[in-house]
Amino acid sequence: MLDIILKHRSIRRYKSEDIDDEILNTILSAGTRASTTGNMQVYSMVVTRDEDIKKQLWECHFKQDMVLKAPVHITFCADFNRFNKWCLQRQAIPGYDNYLSFFTAAIDALLVSQNVCLAAEEKGLGICYLGTATYNARRIIDILRLPSGVVPVAAVVLGYPDEEPGLTDRLPLEGVVHYDRYDDYTKEDIDRIYADKEALDQTRELLEINKKDTLAQIFTDNRYKREDNIHFSREFLDVIKEQGFMNNE
Amino acid sequence: MLDIILKHRSIRRYKSEDIDDEILNTILSAGTRASTTGNMQVYSMVVTRDEDIKKQLWECHFKQDMVLKAPVHITFCADFNRFNKWCLQRQAIPGYDNYLSFFTAAIDALLVSQNVCLAAEEKGLGICYLGTATYNARRIIDILRLPSGVVPVAAVVLGYPDEEPGLTDRLPLEGVVHYDRYDDYTKEDIDRIYADKEALDQTRELLEINKKDTLAQIFTDNRYKREDNIHFSREFLDVIKEQGFMNNE
Repeated sequence: MLDIILKHRSIRRYKSEDIDDEILNTILSAGTRASTTGNMQVYSMVVTRDEDIKKQLWECHFKQDMVLKAPVHITFCADFNRFNKWCLQRQAIPGYDNYLSFFTAAIDALLVSQNVCLAAEEKGLGICYLGTATYNARRIIDILRLPSGVVPVAAVVLGYPDEEPGLTDRLPLEGVVHYDRYDDYTKEDIDRIYADKEALDQTRELLEINKKDTLAQIFTDNRYKREDNIHFSREFLDVIKEQGFMNNE
Repeated sequence: MLDIILKHRSIRRYKSEDIDDEILNTILSAGTRASTTGNMQVYSMVVTRDEDIKKQLWECHFKQDMVLKAPVHITFCADFNRFNKWCLQRQAIPGYDNYLSFFTAAIDALLVSQNVCLAAEEKGLGICYLGTATYNARRIIDILRLPSGVVPVAAVVLGYPDEEPGLTDRLPLEGVVHYDRYDDYTKEDIDRIYADKEALDQTRELLEINKKDTLAQIFTDNRYKREDNIHFSREFLDVIKEQGFMNNE
């Protein structure tokens, strides 16, 4: 288990080999064992293999090659639709059309997704999270025909790896852990925590390619820009509302 | 790995035995290997062992006994504070004070939390998620002194189990998985998917104790009520805003 967790790397190149149904079922079943709030299990997994639908998803994920190449694409959704239908069929009046319910369901979906990814890696598969599921949630809803009460919160591609990338760098443990209470970072803390990352050859290459003075500028000016974040913030909040999760009065 | 995932159950009774620092570090390090958006690692783990602080957290978590009994409490936080400080020290202007950034950081924190829980279980520890971290986020922020840019999204207690509960029931795989697109549930689907759960002895006992006709009513009328959900929805959205994540204009 620990070895699987510790050797995780995102895989972006896949063999064309498909994933056996039995293996896929084992992986999905592993997902269902994650903790869920009150055992409500308010999530769904949409497993997409159809080439045409995958092509549409590929466009939502900014045409990242791996979406077409990997045999399986799973969309993890916050899902109160099933639970609400059950309530209505059982003389119970559901009160889950609000933001807390959305967030609760999103937690369920995300814990499930991590179980699925780790089980997949144990089975020799590679995985890659697509951070873009929330960016173009509305289009994903259209493509996958997600009803009211369902919002995509993460997407993952799975398949047999056709590359062996090294481990990705991480901040030192002291950089992400606090004891008892949050101990806010001093200027010196920040310098120390980011020192190794900034000293990587890879960082130097990125600075040259992007003609930037600091790695942080590559994030703020190129990769995760304020104007994009604002645009997608509005879009995602609209989607949460459209899918029926903003009745907070 | 798979066996660890498949035998997960939430533990609510703990031995007083503490967790060795080396084991704890191994578990926390396992957390850091989870996928994070753009490798920004915008999360923090606050590890609380201090009895007095734990007692304050216990109140936030509706005085659930296990918060006092388990030796370790970890609060998983969406955290752009560290990243923002780094940007500002590196002549970069962060644009991460919006909802998308909050949600991105929450995903990081939640994937990390699941890695931590599975690594803990592999080390013979028991864990239990506290769904209440989002309910009383503002008080947790006060207790743990979380600065702007930091929001708690999940909390977990860890310790050596003093009980051996059976596996919790789950809906059948067909109930939570869709193929290619979302195949919305018919009335018959709902009846079939929930049949086993409704037939459990445990369900019958709950109906008797709560004097209800259906299990769904126990959720809607007792456990997760509309008025509570609405109250905590507003609170949590206010907290997200107060912590600096709602500048979407």
